Amino acid sequence: MTDFSAWMISVQQDVEKHLDTILPGREAIPHNLHEAMRYSVLGGGKRVRALLVFAAGELAEAAPPPLLASAVAVELIHAYSLIHDDLPCMDDDALRRGRPSCHVAFDEATALLAGDALQSLAFECLAKPGLFDSSRSARQLQAVRALAHASGSLGMAGGQAVDLAAVGKTLTRPELELMHAMKTGALIRAAIRLGALCGKSLSGEDNLKETGAFNRLDHFANRVGLLFQVVDDILDCTEKSATLGKTAGKDNATAKPTYVSLLGLDEARRYADELRQEARLALTRFDKGGQRLTELTDFICDRRF
Amino acid sequence: MTDFSAWMISVQQDVEKHLDTILPGREAIPHNLHEAMRYSVLGGGKRVRALLVFAAGELAEAAPPPLLASAVAVELIHAYSLIHDDLPCMDDDALRRGRPSCHVAFDEATALLAGDALQSLAFECLAKPGLFDSSRSARQLQAVRALAHASGSLGMAGGQAVDLAAVGKTLTRPELELMHAMKTGALIRAAIRLGALCGKSLSGEDNLKETGAFNRLDHFANRVGLLFQVVDDILDCTEKSATLGKTAGKDNATAKPTYVSLLGLDEARRYADELRQEARLALTRFDKGGQRLTELTDFICDRRF
Repeated sequence: MTDFSAWMISVQQDVEKHLDTILPGREAIPHNLHEAMRYSVLGGGKRVRALLVFAAGELAEAAPPPLLASAVAVELIHAYSLIHDDLPCMDDDALRRGRPSCHVAFDEATALLAGDALQSLAFECLAKPGLFDSSRSARQLQAVRALAHASGSLGMAGGQAVDLAAVGKTLTRPELELMHAMKTGALIRAAIRLGALCGKSLSGEDNLKETGAFNRLDHFANRVGLLFQVVDDILDCTEKSATLGKTAGKDNATAKPTYVSLLGLDEARRYADELRQEARLALTRFDKGGQRLTELTDFICDRRF
Repeated sequence: MTDFSAWMISVQQDVEKHLDTILPGREAIPHNLHEAMRYSVLGGGKRVRALLVFAAGELAEAAPPPLLASAVAVELIHAYSLIHDDLPCMDDDALRRGRPSCHVAFDEATALLAGDALQSLAFECLAKPGLFDSSRSARQLQAVRALAHASGSLGMAGGQAVDLAAVGKTLTRPELELMHAMKTGALIRAAIRLGALCGKSLSGEDNLKETGAFNRLDHFANRVGLLFQVVDDILDCTEKSATLGKTAGKDNATAKPTYVSLLGLDEARRYADELRQEARLALTRFDKGGQRLTELTDFICDRRF
């Protein structure tokens, strides 16, 4: 098995290359829109969601082509959400991945449309006929549907609305948990589910076992999604903007409820560690392939940016 | 064959009912977002795109369930595009379907997210496994991909960007045509294509004939899409806001190029009639079912709102 760093870099490079191919070139009309889309998608980001697709794919012995398309689709949805989140009527953030946000580098209308078009492109990419082999088109439809559901009003977009409504309020821990389960958790869970759907099976031909395996994987995804957010909140409080590539301390400045504001820094760190343990535990019953997801969990927990 | 008006009302009612079912209820969290989505989608609109799906479906002897889901998906995309088009950073329009626009009735952030979530919901709806019978999942994927392509940067969203860039400029006729082919034409073409994809076949088992039939239908769609826009420009110039349910005369006030400003009113009317004839001609080689599309073409041409 390849060493984790080498694997990560290889996936990141493949995803970057495929994103570059799938995005229309600057020469395509409208030039400005395509430039804004490329600006926001390419050349940055840890590609955590793409890595989750590939790591979950190893669990199901999935082939590279559907994994690549799924990873790219998830990253396109993520990129679109960042563009829209940064808009003045939302978080009004001028900095993203160490560069001016899309609406600052271009203009608001272009940023809005770039986000809209990236969402469409994600589904266009994932629905490519023959991507999964032809006998498995029904499974490919499941992947499209899972990604759409995770992106929508009961997932990511809904979480963003809950988040905006929470500014200046004190949330209870279950309320904060629900918000994050929607806002960042839904797409992370979808990434893991898509990776598994790309494979033949998680546990042979037995449907009951298969359902059980998907449920265990979903529990893992749940914990990792939450872990990702808790670590994000900790980093927002402890790291500088230059390291994060986005405006640090912003949650506090805008009175947004976070795990740090709710639990305090020490308790938030303890909670992150607890979630890591729970995530690892959820993987133990998978015969093989769980190692990559375990390594990725550690990476998500220990990252400094 | 049912009389056109009765058919139209029946399709509109079915689509309205299905939209109501598919949209999460107001009681679902986040309440405000779901209310905004329902406000913008339900209770209005001619549902021209849904009618095109069903009329094209008759040509291919399609069953109601996939037609209904396709029609709903296309209408959700259309509804999302109207919400985003009305935003202050875009057309900044306060009136839509005779009521305050979404961002006026709610707020900008909610309108942005409602549009985003409606786009996701369209794909979630169209990707429902088993919607087309199970042997035809590949065809269902084609439908998802066609809708995504039509919505994206080379279709509707791209056309909107071209439109914004054209404000205050004089466009040539080919430039105006390209803009509309993207902005409104792409989704209209997709509606017709989706309707045909819902059926078993347009012309038996012969693949070559099938491709030819799809090409003829696409040519028809092309003409109808353009016709729809030319009539829209004429109505914007000749009708009052109260009739249109949106701000009339706006194109002129904002110096947007239209067919009327380019050709003059009389010539625009003549052009609409020419497009109607071309559309009708494209349907003549279909053995059966072309009648509904012909009636719908007349409806699109003769409408007064």
